Amino acid sequence: MVQLMKAAVFVEKNRIVLEDKPVPDVGPLDALIRITTTTICGTDIHILKGEYPVEKGLTIGHEPVGIIEKLGSAVTGYQEGQRVIAGAITPSGHSYACLCGCGAQDGAGSKHGFRAMGGWKFGNTIDGCQAEYVLVKDAMANLSPIPDHLSDEDVLMCPDIMSTGFSGAESGGVKIGDTVAVFALGPIGLCAVAGARLMGATTIIGVDTLPERMKVARGLGADHVIDFKAGDPVEQIMELTDGRGVDVAIEALGTQSTFESALRVLRPGGTLSSLGVYSTDLKIPLDAFSAGLGDKRIVTTLCPGGKERMRRLMEVCASGRVDLKPLVTHRFKLDDIEKAYDLFGNQRDGVLKVAIQP
Amino acid sequence: MVQLMKAAVFVEKNRIVLEDKPVPDVGPLDALIRITTTTICGTDIHILKGEYPVEKGLTIGHEPVGIIEKLGSAVTGYQEGQRVIAGAITPSGHSYACLCGCGAQDGAGSKHGFRAMGGWKFGNTIDGCQAEYVLVKDAMANLSPIPDHLSDEDVLMCPDIMSTGFSGAESGGVKIGDTVAVFALGPIGLCAVAGARLMGATTIIGVDTLPERMKVARGLGADHVIDFKAGDPVEQIMELTDGRGVDVAIEALGTQSTFESALRVLRPGGTLSSLGVYSTDLKIPLDAFSAGLGDKRIVTTLCPGGKERMRRLMEVCASGRVDLKPLVTHRFKLDDIEKAYDLFGNQRDGVLKVAIQP
Amino acid sequence: MVQLMKAAVFVEKNRIVLEDKPVPDVGPLDALIRITTTTICGTDIHILKGEYPVEKGLTIGHEPVGIIEKLGSAVTGYQEGQRVIAGAITPSGHSYACLCGCGAQDGAGSKHGFRAMGGWKFGNTIDGCQAEYVLVKDAMANLSPIPDHLSDEDVLMCPDIMSTGFSGAESGGVKIGDTVAVFALGPIGLCAVAGARLMGATTIIGVDTLPERMKVARGLGADHVIDFKAGDPVEQIMELTDGRGVDVAIEALGTQSTFESALRVLRPGGTLSSLGVYSTDLKIPLDAFSAGLGDKRIVTTLCPGGKERMRRLMEVCASGRVDLKPLVTHRFKLDDIEKAYDLFGNQRDGVLKVAIQP
Amino acid sequence: MVQLMKAAVFVEKNRIVLEDKPVPDVGPLDALIRITTTTICGTDIHILKGEYPVEKGLTIGHEPVGIIEKLGSAVTGYQEGQRVIAGAITPSGHSYACLCGCGAQDGAGSKHGFRAMGGWKFGNTIDGCQAEYVLVKDAMANLSPIPDHLSDEDVLMCPDIMSTGFSGAESGGVKIGDTVAVFALGPIGLCAVAGARLMGATTIIGVDTLPERMKVARGLGADHVIDFKAGDPVEQIMELTDGRGVDVAIEALGTQSTFESALRVLRPGGTLSSLGVYSTDLKIPLDAFSAGLGDKRIVTTLCPGGKERMRRLMEVCASGRVDLKPLVTHRFKLDDIEKAYDLFGNQRDGVLKVAIQP
Repeated sequence: MVQLMKAAVFVEKNRIVLEDKPVPDVGPLDALIRITTTTICGTDIHILKGEYPVEKGLTIGHEPVGIIEKLGSAVTGYQEGQRVIAGAITPSGHSYACLCGCGAQDGAGSKHGFRAMGGWKFGNTIDGCQAEYVLVKDAMANLSPIPDHLSDEDVLMCPDIMSTGFSGAESGGVKIGDTVAVFALGPIGLCAVAGARLMGATTIIGVDTLPERMKVARGLGADHVIDFKAGDPVEQIMELTDGRGVDVAIEALGTQSTFESALRVLRPGGTLSSLGVYSTDLKIPLDAFSAGLGDKRIVTTLCPGGKERMRRLMEVCASGRVDLKPLVTHRFKLDDIEKAYDLFGNQRDGVLKVAIQP
Repeated sequence: MVQLMKAAVFVEKNRIVLEDKPVPDVGPLDALIRITTTTICGTDIHILKGEYPVEKGLTIGHEPVGIIEKLGSAVTGYQEGQRVIAGAITPSGHSYACLCGCGAQDGAGSKHGFRAMGGWKFGNTIDGCQAEYVLVKDAMANLSPIPDHLSDEDVLMCPDIMSTGFSGAESGGVKIGDTVAVFALGPIGLCAVAGARLMGATTIIGVDTLPERMKVARGLGADHVIDFKAGDPVEQIMELTDGRGVDVAIEALGTQSTFESALRVLRPGGTLSSLGVYSTDLKIPLDAFSAGLGDKRIVTTLCPGGKERMRRLMEVCASGRVDLKPLVTHRFKLDDIEKAYDLFGNQRDGVLKVAIQP
Repeated sequence: MVQLMKAAVFVEKNRIVLEDKPVPDVGPLDALIRITTTTICGTDIHILKGEYPVEKGLTIGHEPVGIIEKLGSAVTGYQEGQRVIAGAITPSGHSYACLCGCGAQDGAGSKHGFRAMGGWKFGNTIDGCQAEYVLVKDAMANLSPIPDHLSDEDVLMCPDIMSTGFSGAESGGVKIGDTVAVFALGPIGLCAVAGARLMGATTIIGVDTLPERMKVARGLGADHVIDFKAGDPVEQIMELTDGRGVDVAIEALGTQSTFESALRVLRPGGTLSSLGVYSTDLKIPLDAFSAGLGDKRIVTTLCPGGKERMRRLMEVCASGRVDLKPLVTHRFKLDDIEKAYDLFGNQRDGVLKVAIQP
Repeated sequence: MVQLMKAAVFVEKNRIVLEDKPVPDVGPLDALIRITTTTICGTDIHILKGEYPVEKGLTIGHEPVGIIEKLGSAVTGYQEGQRVIAGAITPSGHSYACLCGCGAQDGAGSKHGFRAMGGWKFGNTIDGCQAEYVLVKDAMANLSPIPDHLSDEDVLMCPDIMSTGFSGAESGGVKIGDTVAVFALGPIGLCAVAGARLMGATTIIGVDTLPERMKVARGLGADHVIDFKAGDPVEQIMELTDGRGVDVAIEALGTQSTFESALRVLRPGGTLSSLGVYSTDLKIPLDAFSAGLGDKRIVTTLCPGGKERMRRLMEVCASGRVDLKPLVTHRFKLDDIEKAYDLFGNQRDGVLKVAIQP
């Protein structure tokens, strides 16, 4: 008899609904995880609104915290009952892309081993984790045991928000003494602030307009927070840096406006580190690009995954270097996930991230 | 009495004229170089056509090969009479930009030590080297002695073409076994081909339409040369790479079309290394950019300068690893430079580069 | 009934013998490869002589070229009958070490996921490939299909010699215009010469004393070859470089003498890239190390493996950039492998590498 | 008439004496700095004891904080009366070494532009700054203006201690989530702790035995501090890391014992970042080196200098990210410098660093 579980399913544009689905079968390399805590991501809202296409009937969600329910026959090194997380991105470990250091673009099984965004499987190409159970493919490359002294919420930001946000600083190559600007202080931008701080930036400038976010940004390491409604953020940043510009500008929203401002505040030789999911073509203004002669770089990064990444991020949580607890502003039972989508999708009540517990 | 010299001067749009000018005075950190060979760059044609603004009356040219005529009072380590080159870009060595590894964006004397393209002085912000003499600022950081066994023409490509072209491969991070596409096979693109070859790329695909250039590209290391008039170059490259795409795409022209094609042929996680001087805003198509999630990088590089760079490039010439002699297709006396501009500016007679000798 | 195969087995010090062994069983992640060509490595001679410890009864050999005989039940993306190679080092792809970019130190299954040299399994911790069949663990991370137009011998150097030798240049960070010295021109050193050439070194100095090796080195890109018996190699190299020293010195033997000389010829700020397998403690002389203040680096590299590495190396073979055919000087049937050990172990007849065919 | 100043001069082994010397003449590229605060370095004690050779009669000291008294005729971009620091290492900016990114090995004027430790001039090859005035060569590359709101003591650690200590973490390539061990917690080791913390290490283990130092280390970011007298530090660290070892081990003393321990606690693939000034040959034990097959790296770094480095370090001071004030434990007038040497040289009264004020 098929065992059933509850799962938040994309039914059609503007409808994600909690439904019954069969608990998945476990292949030799897989692990079945019983979800104990998960969350909703801004990308899930794009899916809800029909802005990012996924198949109807897919379970949404890509930030799993849980317990190993069942291990595939070929999986070694883990025990059932162990508390684990997996990244939002789950590289196979064995594709050409993975072995090339590009796990997020994993194309295991495809002709050349690369597939754009191929490492993003949960809630994108396979059933995700806003459910009672989730199946993790290539479990040995992806399951990362949670240290005993960390709670589910302690590590809830690791699978996506923290990994993505920190990567903004890492791909930007932040160095000791750098000045860094972060455009948009949603959960990703806030983690980018924390990541820049963690890597030694000494002047961090956040840009947003919502007072609660600006406050959290200061707590995570922003030295200055600029309200883009109070004046052109480019002018404000150039004034703050006394005309020099910034070494690294991190884009954390996914719009032409933030992208362009990020490019404009760069000093010659600086790096624009882009994290946002765009939904339109982008324009690079000739002057902001110094006609191609300014030694500027534009780098994009999809959330790094894999168990070593998760281990390191949990080390950050355990060390107390960064406190992301203030990001979890609301909590819901899985049964109430539709309400959680309503709150989070409409950005009410100062919500930053919600914790969902089956 | 002021000594006079001949110099190719920008008079107004579409007029560069050989005129008499005073031989410059030599400050304490300067060196006066008697030019023995120089050349005309595509950028000079932009200046001629009024597409890149310089002051009227400026001497044009940024690729000097010559002999030290006079050394500034504070310059040590050189002798008058020594054969030397200097790069097209002449970093001061002591600005914050230089000490940050960004010599091409040198802003010595400016508030923050960075100035976009500030390292490009000759024929841009100070008198250039299409003249009998040129003054080299910060001589100790820039003069690089020519090994005795190399002729002027042996090293004539070092100051700009070779340095820029090679940097396309270097900034792209070409690795052993990479597949590289080079868009446009003018002198810069040809040197990008040579640079990619020199760094270990094993499949190099050139894109152009002029048969002579395509032939030279093969000689310098291109494994495949594609005629963009024979079909969409993106499709041709995807077919050649069996659908995988390239690790590094080098843009060597400065147009939306080549920029966009370069982005489209990248494998996920690949790098677009841009060398062209653009004259319009650029568009990044959403799909070609994987909505910002493809781990793609866009890097731009202004010709690296300084005496260590020149020394290394002359080592390449001396080693015989790369033979750039076929690039010098025509020779003119300085007195005939206006004819040289006419030939080169109109790309007649299969011209690649001209040698100009005072 | 158990199927038997022939295998070269370490029996005891100074005895490697061809014996009958069962053809291995194939686990879910494994692949059974029928060996068509393999070779003997210097490390195998260390094992033969008892200088490197392995268990008695182990099949020796770590350089497999062959055909997929049988795939494990969980292996996808390959077909039985396909021609493949695997690296000497076979990372799992899913250990913490692998996901950290250290596949050669793979410790899949161990507590922390790192094990010194753990990626070296064939002929070290599991049965190797001097046999009719070899079992490849973690097949999806390691099997790399051979392009049709390449013969077994074309790719025979990829699994170890080429990967190790090239890594000497790669880990050394060889750049365009570098001067590189390679100490000892056995097969590894010869590939280090080829690797340095492939990455843009413009002055490559090989050091050995055997005329055949010195000749092959020239063919692979050495600009100078020094006979260490004709005078102190440090003095010879300092003279050749006019007192400057080298940017990168590659050690390819594994002795105090070559290690120390490599350190002494480095310019300040240079890198000693060490490939040799040492059998004694090493001494760093105070003066050669500038008392720790010379910005010198010592880096060691164990042969990089994995299917992407193998794919790239086969690309090098296919491109014709490097011709390693002259390295295969002798050929033997597997039945005659004891003779091959005798020839290779005693370095007779100018042997460089032998091809062994079951 | 020659103006005289007081200066701490090396007279002979075990004698550094305050003497009168002429105030130096100012060449075109120089700046004369009136010292307002300086300090004594462990290296100065090596000089005092005759363990590091300098010429008799040389003024000692290489950590200048002061005011521009007079600028050379060719120096632009500064004003007399400006408060500035210069690094302990003063690269010329224009040597081949500097343009190669190796300013500490600056050999301006020498044949090849490299000289081991050539960037260290003050108190080594030219008169240093334990005096009323110091002459800074290549002033434009080295003078870094002090922000108004920072006191002399706020920036006193920048020229050497902070730059060297931080470079231990930088050259080690510390990444977010790394485990780092620091061997010896003198001023350099303490700054290495702070640098590792600043770059994102999440487990930092300090090793020393003096309680005051261990306490300061905790304040600067050490998560664990080990007393090497309480048991073998290698065993203690392996236990703390649960057998894994560390990603980066920083050696900050200059002895065989600390060097060897640092090598032993590295995980496979880890980096030993060496800062100490050694006075004997070093031994690399075969097992600790995995016979050369462990992908281990040994990197050495001489204190990075130049005005951009100083600017960045003062940014760190200004940001409040790191508080090095507790390092200045004692203060002396220049007139009493012999007493300061006595205290510091004998490590009495829990001294870490002394401030010396003319």
